[in-house]
Amino acid sequence: MDLGFIGLGEMGQAIATNLLKAGHAVRVWNRSRERAEPLAALGAQVVDTPADAFRGDAVFSMLADDAAARAIFDDALLAQAPRGLIHVNMATVSVALAESLAHAHASRGLDYVAAPVMGRPDVAAAARLTIMAGGPAEAIDRVQPLFDAIGQKTWRFGSLPQHANVAKIAANFTLASAIETLGEASALLGAHGVAMRDFLDVITGSVFPGPVYEGYGAMIAERRYEPARFKARLGLKDVRLALEAGDAASVPLPVASVVRDSLLDALAHGGGDQDFAVLGEAALRRAGR
Amino acid sequence: MDLGFIGLGEMGQAIATNLLKAGHAVRVWNRSRERAEPLAALGAQVVDTPADAFRGDAVFSMLADDAAARAIFDDALLAQAPRGLIHVNMATVSVALAESLAHAHASRGLDYVAAPVMGRPDVAAAARLTIMAGGPAEAIDRVQPLFDAIGQKTWRFGSLPQHANVAKIAANFTLASAIETLGEASALLGAHGVAMRDFLDVITGSVFPGPVYEGYGAMIAERRYEPARFKARLGLKDVRLALEAGDAASVPLPVASVVRDSLLDALAHGGGDQDFAVLGEAALRRAGR
Amino acid sequence: MDLGFIGLGEMGQAIATNLLKAGHAVRVWNRSRERAEPLAALGAQVVDTPADAFRGDAVFSMLADDAAARAIFDDALLAQAPRGLIHVNMATVSVALAESLAHAHASRGLDYVAAPVMGRPDVAAAARLTIMAGGPAEAIDRVQPLFDAIGQKTWRFGSLPQHANVAKIAANFTLASAIETLGEASALLGAHGVAMRDFLDVITGSVFPGPVYEGYGAMIAERRYEPARFKARLGLKDVRLALEAGDAASVPLPVASVVRDSLLDALAHGGGDQDFAVLGEAALRRAGR
Amino acid sequence: MDLGFIGLGEMGQAIATNLLKAGHAVRVWNRSRERAEPLAALGAQVVDTPADAFRGDAVFSMLADDAAARAIFDDALLAQAPRGLIHVNMATVSVALAESLAHAHASRGLDYVAAPVMGRPDVAAAARLTIMAGGPAEAIDRVQPLFDAIGQKTWRFGSLPQHANVAKIAANFTLASAIETLGEASALLGAHGVAMRDFLDVITGSVFPGPVYEGYGAMIAERRYEPARFKARLGLKDVRLALEAGDAASVPLPVASVVRDSLLDALAHGGGDQDFAVLGEAALRRAGR
Repeated sequence: MDLGFIGLGEMGQAIATNLLKAGHAVRVWNRSRERAEPLAALGAQVVDTPADAFRGDAVFSMLADDAAARAIFDDALLAQAPRGLIHVNMATVSVALAESLAHAHASRGLDYVAAPVMGRPDVAAAARLTIMAGGPAEAIDRVQPLFDAIGQKTWRFGSLPQHANVAKIAANFTLASAIETLGEASALLGAHGVAMRDFLDVITGSVFPGPVYEGYGAMIAERRYEPARFKARLGLKDVRLALEAGDAASVPLPVASVVRDSLLDALAHGGGDQDFAVLGEAALRRAGR
Repeated sequence: MDLGFIGLGEMGQAIATNLLKAGHAVRVWNRSRERAEPLAALGAQVVDTPADAFRGDAVFSMLADDAAARAIFDDALLAQAPRGLIHVNMATVSVALAESLAHAHASRGLDYVAAPVMGRPDVAAAARLTIMAGGPAEAIDRVQPLFDAIGQKTWRFGSLPQHANVAKIAANFTLASAIETLGEASALLGAHGVAMRDFLDVITGSVFPGPVYEGYGAMIAERRYEPARFKARLGLKDVRLALEAGDAASVPLPVASVVRDSLLDALAHGGGDQDFAVLGEAALRRAGR
Repeated sequence: MDLGFIGLGEMGQAIATNLLKAGHAVRVWNRSRERAEPLAALGAQVVDTPADAFRGDAVFSMLADDAAARAIFDDALLAQAPRGLIHVNMATVSVALAESLAHAHASRGLDYVAAPVMGRPDVAAAARLTIMAGGPAEAIDRVQPLFDAIGQKTWRFGSLPQHANVAKIAANFTLASAIETLGEASALLGAHGVAMRDFLDVITGSVFPGPVYEGYGAMIAERRYEPARFKARLGLKDVRLALEAGDAASVPLPVASVVRDSLLDALAHGGGDQDFAVLGEAALRRAGR
Repeated sequence: MDLGFIGLGEMGQAIATNLLKAGHAVRVWNRSRERAEPLAALGAQVVDTPADAFRGDAVFSMLADDAAARAIFDDALLAQAPRGLIHVNMATVSVALAESLAHAHASRGLDYVAAPVMGRPDVAAAARLTIMAGGPAEAIDRVQPLFDAIGQKTWRFGSLPQHANVAKIAANFTLASAIETLGEASALLGAHGVAMRDFLDVITGSVFPGPVYEGYGAMIAERRYEPARFKARLGLKDVRLALEAGDAASVPLPVASVVRDSLLDALAHGGGDQDFAVLGEAALRRAGR
């Protein structure tokens, strides 16, 4: 297929690479062009403007945050796009922005598919992403082979794109809560002389299997927050999205509020660029440990 | 071996049954004698006083709470016990009580092993409990065959019995936090029109596998809180233990505080005897849903 | 003096009235012109555009929120204003907007004075507002006689306008916390059979005198939330500003988070247009009362 | 009148002194006798056992906590007391203990009056305490002249003693919340460059007059937590009583939970013997300040 790709951070690069490997023609654009060069070596066509990328059969995007998306996907860009183009936005954006983009695209005769993903860059590189897709069914059907080339499974959330974003935001909140909880547990165990590692072995070996409790738990047990696989300040961005989505629908999320405050504590102590697991350090600090 | 068993609630009955099945002689005592009768049919000797049970090679106990344990395991009981007796306390008791019992037993020449378990009555019946053991290594070695008859795995937490209790309390807190989080996520999803079931499929099929997210998640998705497999008021008891253990060691546990308040909300609305998953209903109610 | 006034909600009308009574010429503008008519009867000149009001010696503004202020005070408006004009913004806006407006005005040779106020419309009508002023000292000196005509006291927060906004936001947060606390206390007292009124008499007659504990306390004691003197949804707007200001500077505000969640609970139950005191009802509801 | 007085901490000494000054005969007892000596110089009779003090017309008590009260006011003590004796317990005890003591006294034909007070030792010395009284009306009538000798005002909470304790606990919670809020506000202001002192001047000069915002606010503004007029660990004891009272009646108190966690943070950092205002330092620390 004839594809565009906008936004070549770590995640974007890995995903675009897999699309190229799958044999598709990909025009790539990134704000700083040097991040596009490695893809040129794989056959991508590096273009000069987002508009150059925003055409063909489908265009993927993976921008850093709402502000970046609002700046790029403006009326002018949409106006010049070919009718029938499918825009697959894989970024974790706010529910409000997803809704707004869905309307803007529809009014121009474009298809908007929200497809936020779970998985960090190494998972993306291995084409093992979990994809949460929302949007018109026919549009998703058409890009499904592309999803299959970059992820291990696609979950569908119906025809409203923002539903996939709500689900992604809820998943991120669940993740944040689990890390915060491990951090608090770690402080409790430590204060009573019990090794976090022993505790982790029990819970991950019984009722809490899986990568979250194992991975973040180990980092907290070792008080090792670097290198960051997912930065605390990105975690804070996600928790803010959950709180905003809750606020918009009058849904109190007290655990999300706790995590937010704990992340601010972490940032105030220089942990913004450390791993999300630094929530554990904040919990230990509050316990004087 | 010549065993005693004190406390025949649902868990106690299941465990004692497996000890009998493994061929041990078991003297059983329960406050209300009728709960002991089914075990008599399996060969247990029903005795009239805790003291009658508190002798032989080892005695197991599984009482409802700290108050019950304090009332039974008093100085008089310990004074009449044979030196060398191993007391295996499988109940989830407070850290403070565990410490106090450990001292009281040691001063009488008795071995005290804390062995709280993870798993509900059906798991106990299947001899698949996860056992968290703390106490003198030789004592645990001697009862390990018994543990093998009732559980699938024993995790050791060193020679201080209370360490096993701290770990158990932390595990219960982790569980409570996960349920509360699922409840809040459910309210968020519902308010935005997304089916909790779809969300659950994604997270349990990817980063949050395991029985907690699956089991409690399903109950919350269906708003089905009966029959209770583990009652909300017992969950509250466990969260209180976490908060007390935190308080005693100056460890703030803000997520535990949130769960406690949410459980009180649930109890105030008649949910005390419903399943722990009723935390989800409290979250939905706060969101006006 | 030759004045403009933009934004004639209840507060704006009361303040503009007092400026007219003090003998100043006032050009008034409001989005819906009918709210300006009562002032015309007092001698105000009703103008057709914000730009018509945004000239003379000084212009006051009292708009509903950040969005309204951003929409009105744009580059075009500032560009056409006479150099030396003093803009006195009395609205409670975000710290970020205050900073941004201060820069925009300064770059155009205009003076920007933040002057948020404490006091509801009846206090404004009585010219008894408490004014918190920030901005260039000479500019504040020049408008001080105007402040004296509308308020009982002006407190100065130095030359950076946003400092006055931070202080106002912190004051609103303190207010919100006191109301939430009274609500929780009310639930506690009621559950134990003690009359809130008796409790209020003690604390307001001893360590908590003043209008907040007396006024909001009485409404909570009577479970009377209408007519709203200050609506819950405006209270939520203020708490959001506190949380945003905290977030921007990495300051956790756990009590503000609690109040926010409690306000969302109130809104979810139809209390958005009821008085801020409806926080008490949310606390009672969570306690099943 | 012929009085007894049990418990001569700072508060007890000051109150007993005023009873002596008012011309009453007072038998005094304290666990460590040396604290009773200064009162002997004022005419008190120092006695050897609580029972020696627990007779006459009325006995006042002011013990440190529930545990001390439970240890002293046991069945043996009550059994030997003369029928008709009025026991005035001025300590801040739990609702549960107040209820239990009320029953125990009534069953022995003794009157039990709960009379917790607001005011620190200097206020007690000046006979300016605020007294919150609960118990049989005739009993309170009889001791009212004594209350008038030690306090400035007595507020009555009806015939159930524990109602006065609930009100006292709610008042302490209100106090704790106000201090925590000032601490959080202080962190917010400081992070944005605004002086806490300037903020305090505004709020105490307008909507938040009174000793709490002024006194604790000043300590927080100056980050001065010694000498402690009321220690953080005593504040924590009071917040625990509020949480327990809430728990017993299924009343969530999320602000109390926040304060508790903040106090644990303070204790974990060595602030237990500093003033209650050290809550402000905990808030600053969480903000990295």
